[in-house]
Amino acid sequence: MKSFINYPQNSDFSIHNIPFGVAVFNREYIACCTRIGDMVIDLATLYDYGFFDEIEGLNENVFEAYTLNEFIELGKPVTNAVRLKIQELLLEGSSLSHDEKTIEECFYDLDKVQMMMPLHVQNYTDFYSSIEHATNVGKMFRDPANALLPNWKHLPVGYHGRASSIVVSGINFHRPKGQMKPADAEKPIFGASKQLDFELEMAFVLNKNTEIGESISTQEAEDAIFGMVIFNDWSARDIQSWEYVPLGPFLGKNFCSSISPWVVTLEALEPFRTASPKQEPEVLNYLKFEGDKNFDINLEVYLQPENGEENLICQSNYKYMYWNMAQQLAHHTINGCNVEVGDLYASGTISGNEQNSFGSMLELTWRGQNPLKLSDGTERKFINDHDTIIMRGFSEKNGIRVGFGEVRGKVLPAK
Amino acid sequence: MKSFINYPQNSDFSIHNIPFGVAVFNREYIACCTRIGDMVIDLATLYDYGFFDEIEGLNENVFEAYTLNEFIELGKPVTNAVRLKIQELLLEGSSLSHDEKTIEECFYDLDKVQMMMPLHVQNYTDFYSSIEHATNVGKMFRDPANALLPNWKHLPVGYHGRASSIVVSGINFHRPKGQMKPADAEKPIFGASKQLDFELEMAFVLNKNTEIGESISTQEAEDAIFGMVIFNDWSARDIQSWEYVPLGPFLGKNFCSSISPWVVTLEALEPFRTASPKQEPEVLNYLKFEGDKNFDINLEVYLQPENGEENLICQSNYKYMYWNMAQQLAHHTINGCNVEVGDLYASGTISGNEQNSFGSMLELTWRGQNPLKLSDGTERKFINDHDTIIMRGFSEKNGIRVGFGEVRGKVLPAK
Repeated sequence: MKSFINYPQNSDFSIHNIPFGVAVFNREYIACCTRIGDMVIDLATLYDYGFFDEIEGLNENVFEAYTLNEFIELGKPVTNAVRLKIQELLLEGSSLSHDEKTIEECFYDLDKVQMMMPLHVQNYTDFYSSIEHATNVGKMFRDPANALLPNWKHLPVGYHGRASSIVVSGINFHRPKGQMKPADAEKPIFGASKQLDFELEMAFVLNKNTEIGESISTQEAEDAIFGMVIFNDWSARDIQSWEYVPLGPFLGKNFCSSISPWVVTLEALEPFRTASPKQEPEVLNYLKFEGDKNFDINLEVYLQPENGEENLICQSNYKYMYWNMAQQLAHHTINGCNVEVGDLYASGTISGNEQNSFGSMLELTWRGQNPLKLSDGTERKFINDHDTIIMRGFSEKNGIRVGFGEVRGKVLPAK
Repeated sequence: MKSFINYPQNSDFSIHNIPFGVAVFNREYIACCTRIGDMVIDLATLYDYGFFDEIEGLNENVFEAYTLNEFIELGKPVTNAVRLKIQELLLEGSSLSHDEKTIEECFYDLDKVQMMMPLHVQNYTDFYSSIEHATNVGKMFRDPANALLPNWKHLPVGYHGRASSIVVSGINFHRPKGQMKPADAEKPIFGASKQLDFELEMAFVLNKNTEIGESISTQEAEDAIFGMVIFNDWSARDIQSWEYVPLGPFLGKNFCSSISPWVVTLEALEPFRTASPKQEPEVLNYLKFEGDKNFDINLEVYLQPENGEENLICQSNYKYMYWNMAQQLAHHTINGCNVEVGDLYASGTISGNEQNSFGSMLELTWRGQNPLKLSDGTERKFINDHDTIIMRGFSEKNGIRVGFGEVRGKVLPAK
């Protein structure tokens, strides 16, 4: 497949991708959009010009919206048809390729566009599905000999997170303040977090509403997943470690979480399916699944000091996940918990086996014991003020590349 | 104050209350409403007839809505003015008292009305703020000698719950299924929960949106609280106890939570303010507060077997809460977590000192060791299929009564 829009070989946004997002165009007009190479395409105007007329079930201009929710809710038969239509329109020799007026009106250079939060996130759940991450944390905070808790291999452990504080890439935030209890202190103290961290995660977006009492099986799950984003689950370790017993993470997490602006569909990721790690002991029936339910997605984290260069500090891969998305969703709904369009389900920190594949500063520096050395000669145990964290993700196979772009956020000093 | 509408002395919905809800009238028309005695009043039509014309800031008919959110978002200056106006209109001799046409059109007998979920709940947090409850649970599941965890007296422990599965009183649900590990089993099993429980809680409703990075102080907190409801945090103890380490409650809670349909304003509760239990050790500055920040609200739980009578199984009081609402909200936002109109913040189970004041079956039967004897001769360790749980709450002082009505829900057999 070759597009009439040129882009470099290593672009995340190849003709094979066709992700969805929401943008402000020319600082005045908001619409749902897609991207190829460095061109962002206004889908609302493309709809008005009749390019989607033949798609059954697309009866109004759902692209004239501030979020993708209305589009996503149409379900895969419609959203896949739209994606394939866009792909066809972007091919060399297509009707659109000769239509200068439409291209002039609907195609924008990246620098004319600001990406917005693409979803109204109704509910957000964070899983804990990387065995390497759970093992690392268990070794550090509990028992090195029994790092995994007894339930971990039997169910995808998860908890509810805060939906209101999820922001899009590029939004910066102030270092959170809160209550913590340093190991050498007699009493808890109040102040700015000294152990601010990132967590490298991915999240999937739901396209479906269910009623209370309904469940989604592992077989049905992928039909209910519109696509994925990269997710930075910013964490304040000192606040978290003091507050989290017995009811789980709260203020150590809910001050901010960041997502990449482009939702990459599960269909675009299809060529990169791969097997999951073997699950032993065998899981209960409702968690069994067939076929390759994991995806080979390269993930990178960069730390960039103010006015400095990007330092690659972590290289991981989504394929390391012990529990897959189908299992996560089946588990989440097995008790009849209802789900909603726009819900985000995050993976939990994605760590690999190697030390440089650990998905958080906590693990990379082993709780600050082995600081990271940066290219400017400075060291980091955790994240400093004015540091920017950038996460990137992409899949590549047989010359086909599909990527997520990036999610970035800078830590401003505490207020 | 005497109303031209008659109601019995012990009505929760006296002229001093004036709560807000949303109702379906005559099975065909939905609007925001209030209640006095057994009369439900359609506020949207009252607005159309000009009764709220003089209220500044009430520029459109926000009562023509499926939720109270739009009304609540107007803030206290407007919502208090509306409440006082309604109270004035309901007094003997008011302009409305002689206006038969309006009364005919806007006043409905209870049996012509179905109460709906009054809020779009954006985010839901559950605290754990009763010292008696936390102590009971700590004794049962952890260490009787050190029942409270080290952080408990320093901060109002809380966690994020699932907003999507909060329903209004009267909605029944099927017993949840899930994974659990009985004490005598080698491996986890799958099945219907055998330890289904209620939790007697109250929740407050927020009237304010904040930005990420903003905090709400204990002094500002009550201005941001529109009112309160009774909250039943249904819990499956066997699912919960297997899943909850280390990240907190998840499927053991998120299958259903029930709220009472009438939001009682903080202003209506003003006469019932009372002091909180003394907090020792002293709390950090951001958790300090002035004045009486607790409320004397009698709470009752009834268990009604199918076709049987109501059994009073618990009598508790909101005034036992160790942490108050102002402290909960100040703590929740001290790290800059943003809040949204319609957010619900639940108290956690409200237990008192006496055995009959424990707010859950878990505590009342001490984990099933001392089953409850019901009036029909049967016993309960936890909740049986077809049992209905009813919670009621009211305040009473100097002849003034303000109440919440009830929240009820029946447990249907597992699907």
